Amino acid sequence: MSNGLLSSLRATLPDASIRDNAELATRDPGFDARNFGASALVRPRDTTSVAALVKFCAEHGIGLVAQGGRTGLAGGAATSAGQVICDLGGLNQIEEIDPFARVAIVQAGVTLGALQGAAAVHGLDPGIDLAARGSATIGGMVSTNAGGIMAFRNGTMRHRVLGLEAVLPDGRVFCDLTRVLKTSAGYDLKHLFIGAEGTLGIVTRVAVQLDPVAGASAAALVGVPDAASAQRVVRHFLGSTSARLTAAEILWRNFASLMQRALNYSPGSLPLDAPCLLVLGLGADNIEAARQVLEDGLATVWEEAGIIDGLVASSEAQAAAMWRLREETEQIERAHPMAPSFDVSVPAGTLDAYVARIEAGLRALDASYTPYVYGHLADGNLHISINCDGPVSHERHAAIEDVLYEGLREAGGSFSAEHGVGLEKREAYERHADPVKRDLAKAIKALIDPGDVMNPGKVISGE
Amino acid sequence: MSNGLLSSLRATLPDASIRDNAELATRDPGFDARNFGASALVRPRDTTSVAALVKFCAEHGIGLVAQGGRTGLAGGAATSAGQVICDLGGLNQIEEIDPFARVAIVQAGVTLGALQGAAAVHGLDPGIDLAARGSATIGGMVSTNAGGIMAFRNGTMRHRVLGLEAVLPDGRVFCDLTRVLKTSAGYDLKHLFIGAEGTLGIVTRVAVQLDPVAGASAAALVGVPDAASAQRVVRHFLGSTSARLTAAEILWRNFASLMQRALNYSPGSLPLDAPCLLVLGLGADNIEAARQVLEDGLATVWEEAGIIDGLVASSEAQAAAMWRLREETEQIERAHPMAPSFDVSVPAGTLDAYVARIEAGLRALDASYTPYVYGHLADGNLHISINCDGPVSHERHAAIEDVLYEGLREAGGSFSAEHGVGLEKREAYERHADPVKRDLAKAIKALIDPGDVMNPGKVISGE
Repeated sequence: MSNGLLSSLRATLPDASIRDNAELATRDPGFDARNFGASALVRPRDTTSVAALVKFCAEHGIGLVAQGGRTGLAGGAATSAGQVICDLGGLNQIEEIDPFARVAIVQAGVTLGALQGAAAVHGLDPGIDLAARGSATIGGMVSTNAGGIMAFRNGTMRHRVLGLEAVLPDGRVFCDLTRVLKTSAGYDLKHLFIGAEGTLGIVTRVAVQLDPVAGASAAALVGVPDAASAQRVVRHFLGSTSARLTAAEILWRNFASLMQRALNYSPGSLPLDAPCLLVLGLGADNIEAARQVLEDGLATVWEEAGIIDGLVASSEAQAAAMWRLREETEQIERAHPMAPSFDVSVPAGTLDAYVARIEAGLRALDASYTPYVYGHLADGNLHISINCDGPVSHERHAAIEDVLYEGLREAGGSFSAEHGVGLEKREAYERHADPVKRDLAKAIKALIDPGDVMNPGKVISGE
Repeated sequence: MSNGLLSSLRATLPDASIRDNAELATRDPGFDARNFGASALVRPRDTTSVAALVKFCAEHGIGLVAQGGRTGLAGGAATSAGQVICDLGGLNQIEEIDPFARVAIVQAGVTLGALQGAAAVHGLDPGIDLAARGSATIGGMVSTNAGGIMAFRNGTMRHRVLGLEAVLPDGRVFCDLTRVLKTSAGYDLKHLFIGAEGTLGIVTRVAVQLDPVAGASAAALVGVPDAASAQRVVRHFLGSTSARLTAAEILWRNFASLMQRALNYSPGSLPLDAPCLLVLGLGADNIEAARQVLEDGLATVWEEAGIIDGLVASSEAQAAAMWRLREETEQIERAHPMAPSFDVSVPAGTLDAYVARIEAGLRALDASYTPYVYGHLADGNLHISINCDGPVSHERHAAIEDVLYEGLREAGGSFSAEHGVGLEKREAYERHADPVKRDLAKAIKALIDPGDVMNPGKVISGE
């Protein structure tokens, strides 16, 4: 980007903070080193300023990449020379929390953690949670249709959004800050921007539904022979109306063993010796009631579900120890730097068969491959990391993807459950997404962003 | 439509049942007399046959109108001479219910009641309910993004759809029968077809999420001074994790009085003497627990919420009597044939002010107007009927709409909550929907259906 263009950009946006690529080189790019490959980063303060930036880029044919917390795992925020970053960190105001209507109006750069904290003051919660809560922004979560551990109950980010405002590629503002759940007043076009990873517009404000939080939450760790058994346990608690199941996470043995070693858990301290571990979270009006429902429920289904071992946490510390087993997934990175990792949705009835199939398929690729598999049991969203250092060759990565994604769409699953497509899954998208859907997506991208200004090259191929 | 064209249609679809307009004239058109204004009705048996019909219509420039239960209230299924009806009643198979995965795969013509019945065998439920359950079809409910009484908890139809299959205007089949909740694998284009009222494609199959039903359900009738008071009651039960609030319907006095008279309820039999009545439904593991939670909850919030009177139903019959007050809305039609009626979403904090404002505004139009107002308290969806025989003049209808819709979008509400736009709300759409959204919707309609084959003239204006 020429100095003249940069000066012109500064003149167009006098109130925005603007950094050139030399300044960017000295700063932390977040999860993906390519995030700061752009020629400039602009940090607007409001929607009007975002719109002015978009118009500038459209006029000059500059690719514009929206960034939130830079915690995305699919390269959706990666940039290259000549592009400009729209850093939404300046739009960081929680504009309103209406405890009566249970709605928050937040700017795109607000972190999930900030919204959780502001809502908690009123006994409310955005109903979505994920490990990157401290950095992931609401705008980024909307753009990737984030999921997390409570999605099986509350839906994904798409289901938590009542309305949104977005700047279109021509600089116009699409304003649909609906605060109500029910609207059937023409095409509900906000859903185009949810999960579009910034390729159709830049989300600037969001109306998020809030829910009352449970009085208290208890945890249990349950050892089971397989996912089917774990699902029988989950089904029991889902059917109970006297408490609220809030989490049901599954860990296959290979992953659980890695975590146990990494966290130095002594054998016998928790029921860890089973082919699969299930971490349950359950909310009730008070902690005693929550623990009792877990105790009673496990006793009721113990035989029918084939439970091997199980423990209801008797203290906050014990519950936290159970959760660390599931949440400290950076231990995989420590054991295998840049390990290839994947994020699939598998239909509920086929989980055990799927895991058996991919274990065999990966072993056929390389006899040393024994994947780490864990994830959100109640919605079938599995995270899979290969036990090797990365990055692997392009061919090997594609071969692994073929093992993991083959037949998944036909069975009703998804090759990207909650991380998006970005750059990383572009090839998988071309190979595994429905051709009619791909055609339609490409036509919609061309219609809304004919100049390919918005996050070019992501999700939809540019040609 | 010429006899030649009709013969050609019969030759193209030898397996489909086809009726001409003379045959249609002898049959029940459903809620809207215009439903059977078309030149022919075709009843295909499967998706392939629907696709052949679509191609035929596209080639011959014939408008094609999909019909399900013909219970829509906004004229979305109305037809005129020269058009052809695609009657989805032939696609009436529940293809699969997977009780383990809690997913149903149903054809578009299956009624809600049929799906509810089939799911109930497994202790499951589609999580959506409305009074027209016996005739409304899943395809129609998807196409209007139906809401109903449980939407505040489970979302609208949009939130219950995991995947769908639709025939595009060029005859291609968009197949996204995803069975999982989490997918972030490119633009989630199924949402274009949800709520599009058949103007972008014909929905042929749907994957619907199912939920476990509560063991038992109790009801209460509560008299309160206003909606704000009713909302405090609801907020209390929403915050409880020891039971599941399943319905919270509000009836303003004018409507409640009409119903009480029409149903011949004797004074004193139920707590009916209050400015607003609240009908609560609450699920728990057994009926005693459900009633106890209602009793205890009402006692707890009685003073704080300003409850005037209240009763927990002590029998199924008493609960049914409470529900008839809310559900037998055809009593309005009996008192005022073709009364103008409306369906809005009002942000939670503004319900009382909204009702006061429209009462005054309607009185200013005609001193005799005292509207019947009732609806879904917990999501702010109000149904409003005017106490006069219809139809009123076009000018008067527009003047009523202006009173009801003015400022609603700006406040975050919606001029059509769950009935769609169809024909009836076309003018309201032009006047009250966001212009940028309207422009984008029109461009998408032109992109996907350039020949204006699919339900022409509905939702989006044709010019």
